[in-house]
Amino acid sequence: MSTPARVIDPTVVAHAFREEIRREVRAIGEPLVLVGFLVADHGPSATYAEYTRRACDDVGVRFDLRHVKRLEAEADVLAANADPGVHGVLVYYPVFGTQQDVYLRELVDAGKDIEGLSSFWARCLYTNTRLLDPLGKKKAILPCTPLAIMKLLDAAGASREGAPRPLAGVRAVVFNRSEVVGRPLASMMANDGAEVVSFDIDGAQLFAPAKEDGAHTVEETTIDRASALAKADVIVTGVPSRAFPLVRAEEIREGAVCLSFSTMKNFDDGIVEKAGVFVPRVGPMTVTMALRNLVRLWRNGRG
Amino acid sequence: MSTPARVIDPTVVAHAFREEIRREVRAIGEPLVLVGFLVADHGPSATYAEYTRRACDDVGVRFDLRHVKRLEAEADVLAANADPGVHGVLVYYPVFGTQQDVYLRELVDAGKDIEGLSSFWARCLYTNTRLLDPLGKKKAILPCTPLAIMKLLDAAGASREGAPRPLAGVRAVVFNRSEVVGRPLASMMANDGAEVVSFDIDGAQLFAPAKEDGAHTVEETTIDRASALAKADVIVTGVPSRAFPLVRAEEIREGAVCLSFSTMKNFDDGIVEKAGVFVPRVGPMTVTMALRNLVRLWRNGRG
Repeated sequence: MSTPARVIDPTVVAHAFREEIRREVRAIGEPLVLVGFLVADHGPSATYAEYTRRACDDVGVRFDLRHVKRLEAEADVLAANADPGVHGVLVYYPVFGTQQDVYLRELVDAGKDIEGLSSFWARCLYTNTRLLDPLGKKKAILPCTPLAIMKLLDAAGASREGAPRPLAGVRAVVFNRSEVVGRPLASMMANDGAEVVSFDIDGAQLFAPAKEDGAHTVEETTIDRASALAKADVIVTGVPSRAFPLVRAEEIREGAVCLSFSTMKNFDDGIVEKAGVFVPRVGPMTVTMALRNLVRLWRNGRG
Repeated sequence: MSTPARVIDPTVVAHAFREEIRREVRAIGEPLVLVGFLVADHGPSATYAEYTRRACDDVGVRFDLRHVKRLEAEADVLAANADPGVHGVLVYYPVFGTQQDVYLRELVDAGKDIEGLSSFWARCLYTNTRLLDPLGKKKAILPCTPLAIMKLLDAAGASREGAPRPLAGVRAVVFNRSEVVGRPLASMMANDGAEVVSFDIDGAQLFAPAKEDGAHTVEETTIDRASALAKADVIVTGVPSRAFPLVRAEEIREGAVCLSFSTMKNFDDGIVEKAGVFVPRVGPMTVTMALRNLVRLWRNGRG
């Protein structure tokens, strides 16, 4: 008889990080200002903006939410970039719901991009560039949702915190290879030493662990779902589709760490009978990591 | 009785530009090298690569086509960026066919981006920044397909070449607002003085003419297809869908300039009875403008 999985509530993990951020914000002495741009009056982006407000209140950051029309967003982002009184910029997508959103995302000054999604930060990640200056005073920003997942995996005991390669020897499976979560996550895990099989509709890829000071490598692979899952210590899902066959207890290793960041159910309920840890959602940790990035960017600016 | 439209063959227009490019390439004295990255062995991207080869042969540019696997493209683009012997980089999309292609597009050094599609050049366009230095020795690069269309509109007599605002007073309609053609095109036309109604599946927008040294503005509009077409001096289509109702002679002004860059039929055959000029395709001009950009980027580097 196995014991049921420990279920981790991301709110609890976020709480500890927020305490640390609150202390840091207080120590800075000047008010940190985060500007948000919101186009929709309701729906997921408006909800995320409300979560941001609560998190900012919680840690003592000034949150300035600006309701804009979609065609005003470009000029407003450029103005916020240029305003020294603004320390972070957060655009609530979708704005256009087209490729124009990517153009907008690239407009956000990397020095104020607390989500870490602009190609400047993506390039740092994929080349495993962790410091921006030789003295190590300026640290690269990591995209907030994959970073939130990494911290939740720490909390789940999947990594050896503080080790040079905290995920060395770990085998992971990630279902999702989007540019905003799945690909950067697989990259971060491989940079930390894990071997990651990444599944998406355009095939499977193997993210091989980084060696010495280099970055991880990626190759196409023919590994199938069944054999990847059977070996996985860590399983992460983010498939927003009802067509995805739920990951079932029979498919996984006893004691595996299972985490879902999907808006839809990706794990069968029976998973908790076999998994070691189950993390059912990520939400509160994402906004917390965005605020952690805000503090880091402020420090980089003063480095 | 109206006379049938003059039909413009883009090959003929391209011929004149290529002569000029050939002269400039010869005058440079060192060989200009364009590196292309191709993943597919056949299909539209392989065909485009073949067109590039012929155009390079035609103007005396060295074309180095490299067949790569999709997961090699990133490292290979970075190597070409760093190689002083490479003057232009052209990636034949799709590589991944996902948002990862946007990441790749942003990796191409702006100084070698002859397609002019990276967000650095897009930002120059949307802010109507035409010179990169106060002396005006370094000129901004324009994306090659919209630039090709602008030159074909010149050839069609739609603009007053050499005037400060060559399209002042012109009313235009563009069906397509993609980030690679329709939006930059509407922007270029408005920067040149035209009033452009831009239609796409997410609504209609009005690109209002630039005033003095500024950039054009954009606003949402309720103008419908019928009234926009009835007033249009220039009509450009790029709708890759059979569901698009063909633009018919009854809808347009006598003598209008009609141009299609679509892979599908967008104008009814009867259009030639009423249009002043019909440009049925753009293809050969696109690669010609990419080579023109190559020369311009080489000059910028020596500026």
